Amino acid sequence: MSSMPIHGGRIIARALRQEGVSHLFTLCGGHVQAIYDGCIDEGIRVVDTRHEQTAGHAADGWARATGQPGVAAVTAGPGVTDVVTAVANAQRAGVPMVILGGQGPRMFQDMGSLQDMNHVELMRPITMWSSSVPAIDRLAEYVAMAFRHATSGVPGPVFLEIPLDFQLMYVVEEDKVKWQTGYRTDHVAAPDPAATSAAVDLLVAAERPLCIMGGQLRFGDRPQERLNAFLETANIPIYVNGMARGSIPPSSPRFLNRARSWALNGAEVLLEFGTPLDFRLKYGQSIPKSTKVIQVDLDHSLIGQNRHIDVGIPADTCLTLSALTEGIKEAGGRRDFSEWHAEIAAMEEKKWAAMRAEMASETDPPNPLRLCSEVTRFLKEDTIVIGDGGDFVATAAYSLPIHGIGRWMDPGPLGTLGVGPGYAIAAKLANPDSDVVIMFGDGSFGLNGMEFEAMVRQNIKVVGIIGNDAAWMQIMRGQ
Amino acid sequence: MSSMPIHGGRIIARALRQEGVSHLFTLCGGHVQAIYDGCIDEGIRVVDTRHEQTAGHAADGWARATGQPGVAAVTAGPGVTDVVTAVANAQRAGVPMVILGGQGPRMFQDMGSLQDMNHVELMRPITMWSSSVPAIDRLAEYVAMAFRHATSGVPGPVFLEIPLDFQLMYVVEEDKVKWQTGYRTDHVAAPDPAATSAAVDLLVAAERPLCIMGGQLRFGDRPQERLNAFLETANIPIYVNGMARGSIPPSSPRFLNRARSWALNGAEVLLEFGTPLDFRLKYGQSIPKSTKVIQVDLDHSLIGQNRHIDVGIPADTCLTLSALTEGIKEAGGRRDFSEWHAEIAAMEEKKWAAMRAEMASETDPPNPLRLCSEVTRFLKEDTIVIGDGGDFVATAAYSLPIHGIGRWMDPGPLGTLGVGPGYAIAAKLANPDSDVVIMFGDGSFGLNGMEFEAMVRQNIKVVGIIGNDAAWMQIMRGQ
Amino acid sequence: MSSMPIHGGRIIARALRQEGVSHLFTLCGGHVQAIYDGCIDEGIRVVDTRHEQTAGHAADGWARATGQPGVAAVTAGPGVTDVVTAVANAQRAGVPMVILGGQGPRMFQDMGSLQDMNHVELMRPITMWSSSVPAIDRLAEYVAMAFRHATSGVPGPVFLEIPLDFQLMYVVEEDKVKWQTGYRTDHVAAPDPAATSAAVDLLVAAERPLCIMGGQLRFGDRPQERLNAFLETANIPIYVNGMARGSIPPSSPRFLNRARSWALNGAEVLLEFGTPLDFRLKYGQSIPKSTKVIQVDLDHSLIGQNRHIDVGIPADTCLTLSALTEGIKEAGGRRDFSEWHAEIAAMEEKKWAAMRAEMASETDPPNPLRLCSEVTRFLKEDTIVIGDGGDFVATAAYSLPIHGIGRWMDPGPLGTLGVGPGYAIAAKLANPDSDVVIMFGDGSFGLNGMEFEAMVRQNIKVVGIIGNDAAWMQIMRGQ
Amino acid sequence: MSSMPIHGGRIIARALRQEGVSHLFTLCGGHVQAIYDGCIDEGIRVVDTRHEQTAGHAADGWARATGQPGVAAVTAGPGVTDVVTAVANAQRAGVPMVILGGQGPRMFQDMGSLQDMNHVELMRPITMWSSSVPAIDRLAEYVAMAFRHATSGVPGPVFLEIPLDFQLMYVVEEDKVKWQTGYRTDHVAAPDPAATSAAVDLLVAAERPLCIMGGQLRFGDRPQERLNAFLETANIPIYVNGMARGSIPPSSPRFLNRARSWALNGAEVLLEFGTPLDFRLKYGQSIPKSTKVIQVDLDHSLIGQNRHIDVGIPADTCLTLSALTEGIKEAGGRRDFSEWHAEIAAMEEKKWAAMRAEMASETDPPNPLRLCSEVTRFLKEDTIVIGDGGDFVATAAYSLPIHGIGRWMDPGPLGTLGVGPGYAIAAKLANPDSDVVIMFGDGSFGLNGMEFEAMVRQNIKVVGIIGNDAAWMQIMRGQ
Repeated sequence: MSSMPIHGGRIIARALRQEGVSHLFTLCGGHVQAIYDGCIDEGIRVVDTRHEQTAGHAADGWARATGQPGVAAVTAGPGVTDVVTAVANAQRAGVPMVILGGQGPRMFQDMGSLQDMNHVELMRPITMWSSSVPAIDRLAEYVAMAFRHATSGVPGPVFLEIPLDFQLMYVVEEDKVKWQTGYRTDHVAAPDPAATSAAVDLLVAAERPLCIMGGQLRFGDRPQERLNAFLETANIPIYVNGMARGSIPPSSPRFLNRARSWALNGAEVLLEFGTPLDFRLKYGQSIPKSTKVIQVDLDHSLIGQNRHIDVGIPADTCLTLSALTEGIKEAGGRRDFSEWHAEIAAMEEKKWAAMRAEMASETDPPNPLRLCSEVTRFLKEDTIVIGDGGDFVATAAYSLPIHGIGRWMDPGPLGTLGVGPGYAIAAKLANPDSDVVIMFGDGSFGLNGMEFEAMVRQNIKVVGIIGNDAAWMQIMRGQ
Repeated sequence: MSSMPIHGGRIIARALRQEGVSHLFTLCGGHVQAIYDGCIDEGIRVVDTRHEQTAGHAADGWARATGQPGVAAVTAGPGVTDVVTAVANAQRAGVPMVILGGQGPRMFQDMGSLQDMNHVELMRPITMWSSSVPAIDRLAEYVAMAFRHATSGVPGPVFLEIPLDFQLMYVVEEDKVKWQTGYRTDHVAAPDPAATSAAVDLLVAAERPLCIMGGQLRFGDRPQERLNAFLETANIPIYVNGMARGSIPPSSPRFLNRARSWALNGAEVLLEFGTPLDFRLKYGQSIPKSTKVIQVDLDHSLIGQNRHIDVGIPADTCLTLSALTEGIKEAGGRRDFSEWHAEIAAMEEKKWAAMRAEMASETDPPNPLRLCSEVTRFLKEDTIVIGDGGDFVATAAYSLPIHGIGRWMDPGPLGTLGVGPGYAIAAKLANPDSDVVIMFGDGSFGLNGMEFEAMVRQNIKVVGIIGNDAAWMQIMRGQ
Repeated sequence: MSSMPIHGGRIIARALRQEGVSHLFTLCGGHVQAIYDGCIDEGIRVVDTRHEQTAGHAADGWARATGQPGVAAVTAGPGVTDVVTAVANAQRAGVPMVILGGQGPRMFQDMGSLQDMNHVELMRPITMWSSSVPAIDRLAEYVAMAFRHATSGVPGPVFLEIPLDFQLMYVVEEDKVKWQTGYRTDHVAAPDPAATSAAVDLLVAAERPLCIMGGQLRFGDRPQERLNAFLETANIPIYVNGMARGSIPPSSPRFLNRARSWALNGAEVLLEFGTPLDFRLKYGQSIPKSTKVIQVDLDHSLIGQNRHIDVGIPADTCLTLSALTEGIKEAGGRRDFSEWHAEIAAMEEKKWAAMRAEMASETDPPNPLRLCSEVTRFLKEDTIVIGDGGDFVATAAYSLPIHGIGRWMDPGPLGTLGVGPGYAIAAKLANPDSDVVIMFGDGSFGLNGMEFEAMVRQNIKVVGIIGNDAAWMQIMRGQ
Repeated sequence: MSSMPIHGGRIIARALRQEGVSHLFTLCGGHVQAIYDGCIDEGIRVVDTRHEQTAGHAADGWARATGQPGVAAVTAGPGVTDVVTAVANAQRAGVPMVILGGQGPRMFQDMGSLQDMNHVELMRPITMWSSSVPAIDRLAEYVAMAFRHATSGVPGPVFLEIPLDFQLMYVVEEDKVKWQTGYRTDHVAAPDPAATSAAVDLLVAAERPLCIMGGQLRFGDRPQERLNAFLETANIPIYVNGMARGSIPPSSPRFLNRARSWALNGAEVLLEFGTPLDFRLKYGQSIPKSTKVIQVDLDHSLIGQNRHIDVGIPADTCLTLSALTEGIKEAGGRRDFSEWHAEIAAMEEKKWAAMRAEMASETDPPNPLRLCSEVTRFLKEDTIVIGDGGDFVATAAYSLPIHGIGRWMDPGPLGTLGVGPGYAIAAKLANPDSDVVIMFGDGSFGLNGMEFEAMVRQNIKVVGIIGNDAAWMQIMRGQ
């Protein structure tokens, strides 16, 4: 390394590269320019959008597509406020990402610089960590901190403000920069063996067990391998949610899609991973009182929310799957739940039969299921499908087949509309050989539809399909 | 009034109507539906947008166009986060507006309802007041509070969260609602007579006085009348900024446009209203050390920021103008500053002469001044011009003639791009007989260009002109 | 000035001295040591306490005693948290003070230094301004900012964090320090002439006007002179609250003490200054519906809270008193309200007669009024009386005669117990020739009674009287 | 259960009892009275203090003494602000506790009730969770939430505000209250088996391993049993910090006390539990670069802070100890580090020899070590020793022998002075048969010395010893 000074933007870029960052999402802005310069020198592609919201969603989408934190850089003031929605969405969904925010020069702090505002406190309630670099010689260290906080415990977004003067100044020699190593661990929380044991006891004793798999699966180690090994051993029917969709093949005999409510109602023991008992499960009311519940969540503070829990496991989904697999093997291994499977299969078939009629319907305007059915014909196994909307996307979510984790993306519990273009840009850049399809509601398309210009300009090929009912259907139904 | 129960949305709407609200800006969302119902019943027009950011900018633009607080309603979660930029922009500019935010039912608080998040704390740092209605029988009172806080002291945005159950429930009888009166005052802070006197002493003693007028003029009482009376008496050359633009006719002999830096450099006494000595005045460095400064600002805490102030007046611009007018009259009235005016006029002419060449230039791509010059030909006296962009808008700001306060809109010190469509929607609805023109940079157009769909659909006629340099010019110049 | 470097603590101290600060209240702590060194060099007395809460109350008390902001310095971590109560109390009461907080070295930010915590965000909700000095060369500027914010608009507490390294380093030459002048104004908001006029109209038309005077009187210009001139002209009976107590002589024929509720009930027009319609006035319910209300408050956002207001005046109390005095004179001057005065006087006398019996009572334990009556015998005209407690202090508040503003101190609307020793230390140091008496409840004494050690050690002579009922009487009554 | 309504205070008290709460610490206040009534009915002892700070420290001390969350109730406004220091101290130390805060009636929210302030946002930055009960029928649920959050992940303080009207009202029938069960789990995060394995590899390969044990040990399951089993198997010298002190007998051959710096310097592999590399380890500079570090911490985000980490384990200390014990056994079990032990023992002896001279010294004023040596003679095995001060406590910490976890208490990294009386009250009530001794600095005693009155009054027998140097020695040394 040289003893020549390097500018702050370069230090930041190299710290990003050391984390394996290959793409930086942004909308061109004056307070982050030096970071672009650094990225170009360090071989990081700078990807442009038309609205910072999309830059943020792209960072989120990158994490969903790759399992690694995505990164966006936004200019000061409105650049930072424009990305708020993407940050809040990633936080509620548990997606790791790093937002770098510009700021006026530190030397003009509290003097009213252009676009000056208190970004750090604005971001506080919607991030895992929000901070501002205090000195130019600590740039590399703060970038490392940002990644540490984004990936610690429950993954989530972080915000790091970098004043303009620190980006621009050439005052630290390259070999004097405190380049960081060993500053975070990929190891995560495993289940307490006593909890595993209690869970196994419930599972092996049950006649009608059921599993719900949530999005925390995405950011674990070897998620599909561990999940499928578990299912092979435990032989439990399973419903997969959000970011976990695609992790088991639609053809799996244990894959439960349409009969969730029915199965929930009949289950004796429910094993759920990273799925709070929130509005999606009617605050626990979807589960009969007599059902025993085993709740696994990296967020310890969600365990026991809204309903009595029989076994609570504050741990990583992937490590828990492996521990349960071992535990069930030790307890005698796979059981035959064929009666229970058959009942579920019958109910699934009944629901599908009803749907098949709609899928073939010739009405005009076309039935949404018919449209999804047509889309299905064009999907390849490695196609990535993004849902951006309300009713239509719900239809797409259960009717389109998804093969592989990270190949379905939807906003998750915050229900953000307009995520589609950002997710698609990231998905395509992360998977250049795969097709990327956005299933839009017509309302959703309105939020960030301009991004197709950015995609075309940068040769990012994405297909958008609009389920146009020319109405906000969920509202109209209410009225 | 009837003794029948009315639903919460109706109560809110009637409280809005009592404030004189005629338009509610929104993007259709489930958590604020009942407010729409109420508005329709109360004769308030619900105006739809494609992104909540535009709903927020429209509320801001409404205030700029009319002098009265604008109102937007946004759905929970991403609806609220999407409006953050518009709120921050209004706060930095000092524009009164009321954002009503939906929220999941209060009865499910902390249980994880759809799109549930802590809106109130997110909005805290960027509003004058942020709160959530605590009980259904207090809806009218909280709407009144919201307007009180939006219009108290320095005007600004406020946020009021209204849980869905309170909107929907029919439990309060119409005649039991605590309908509010006398809950705020339009009276504002006047100048301390001792301060007025000190300011007058400086002004009448000066040979080369100068005035800078900022945006706080907009929300005072009879701004143009008071400003022009003051100028008539004080005979001081003046430069008008931001929301004050248009308040004096471009033809006024005291109107200073191009020679601001030169005049600042030569002034003996500077009288400035609502113009912090921030980046726009190089943190006070634009003003020679020997210049005496009289600073008038509703925000007391900005008086004395960044530079020594000789007289500080924490008061309303309009009331201060009248008090100074009286004071100068008492001190002997209008002075003859013809030499000083002539010097300024000569410098102005010199600058304009240089511009006229560019205005006539035939280059391809066209010179921005040429484009503005062409646009000028189509402007009527009551046309409203909106600047949404960077370089091109700066050009428009000084070259297009504006006749009347509220007929020029630009984002102000936060420098937000994408304000154009929201401002234009509001401007047109507030002034249906006037033309509305947005001067866009090509970058800016990308942020909220989709709104032209909403405008067309709702028959809101607006002209957009894009100064397309196919680049982010301020950045490119930096590079 | 010399071109030798001076250390940060010295810069801070000199900036304090330029503000006229003569006393710094503190509890000795390692993160603010250099400030002490600076203070000693600059001739500022460092006053020691046993708990930072008292240092904060002393700064508050200094402002009450002198009308100028008080200053306390507290060490990092628990030093800052210990002062939180005093800050919250000053904020709710509207008292200007500056808290300087130590912090670990900036160079170790986010590394876990001793007593490191985020002071600035902790202080945010209870201060007018909370910030941390970002660079050593800006120390003087930030001290000036602190005073600007403490004295802008409604007075209140501010917090300024100063990292230890900035205090200790000798890097800025004395003549390079940006010593500040003209950085704030003492001018405050005056009443809008239109509002004054509307108020005068109501006042001169009334037969039974009443005035309530609140604590904002304290920090205005020439408060007693203006108030007494107003009363002389307006001839209105008045009740004085909190920090305004003592501003009119108890012997004044317009002084209303015991008959407040009765008078409120009979008043036609109520003129109130700095007295929110909060719990103390039963949220406005103490005022009959037919009464016309003129509300004057520096805090615009309180005008109209809880009740219909007829005239709202967002302005300084002192300037408004003078404007009303002028207005009433112009409207014909003093009216004869002798009937109304006589009625009130009769009611006052009736209440006092009842009290006199208790004052003479010989019960054991003694009646609190008897005790107050005995204390009265020892009070001189310039004695400062401090109330620190609940029931007993309420008794003292109406029964002890107070002569002069700043000679009665009580915590105000936050109702903080334990303020006594801090207030007393400040009162005595500000008035070395006056006696200072604390009227304690026995519960209150428990909070900061240890401070008598600090007083004795530093020769600060104060008398404490404990009204010992050996119970928390307000609670016991509830039970 | 009855179908009669019960008041809110009773519901709260019963929910506390269901958590096993036996003592509630408080200072008598009007806004929490109904909770006292409920506690008395439910058999929870209400313990009185003279300052809410002590009530908070007592809740903290209860947790340290028992391993279970302590509970304090504080009145609104200054009651809540007075407890801030105790909350901040518990947060920095990782101690679970629940603070119940009173508040004015919800029905008067935003109307200015007595002692009204925004407690929830004030507490946000220093708690794991801060909330206000939104409805009377959710009281039991929110108490359960409070305990869930206090005990989830890293333990810490939580704040729950309970408006007065909800406490007082009798509107919910006893059998309609949603009494909570299964709302949290005691299971905690275990180490990832891959991480355990990597750690064991390092440990068994080392010649000179060293262990540092921090306070997270306190709140795990069977801490002493697991730690001693680990040491028996691993045979590693160990230094114990803060809340872990006493967990191994001072007589253990592996117990390292005085030679920490020396041992750190010589260690090849450092295994540290719950001990951030903060100021106490000179931000990692105390550890040679060549040393391999295994860092175990429940707070994932601290792993890798300030220094390169070789193995990071985000897990509970107790579970990790057991996993490492198993791992070392599988890897061949206990190794002979007799040379390393002997070196350390020699260095320890050398340091003790130097100390013994001071312990016997006859100087006047006495040497602090002499004083500690005298105190030692009176300590029994089950005596609880509390350090409240600076220098003197540091001396006590290394010279007094402690037998058993929870028998030494000091404030921890926030370094709060004044914790002694609160800790002592809790320690004595939790261990009525043990002696409790506070080692005070003379400065520290000043903060909460009044509490001896509360102790005497309530017959809580505690001994306080003041190491009186009549100075703030750490400051004097600095000067």
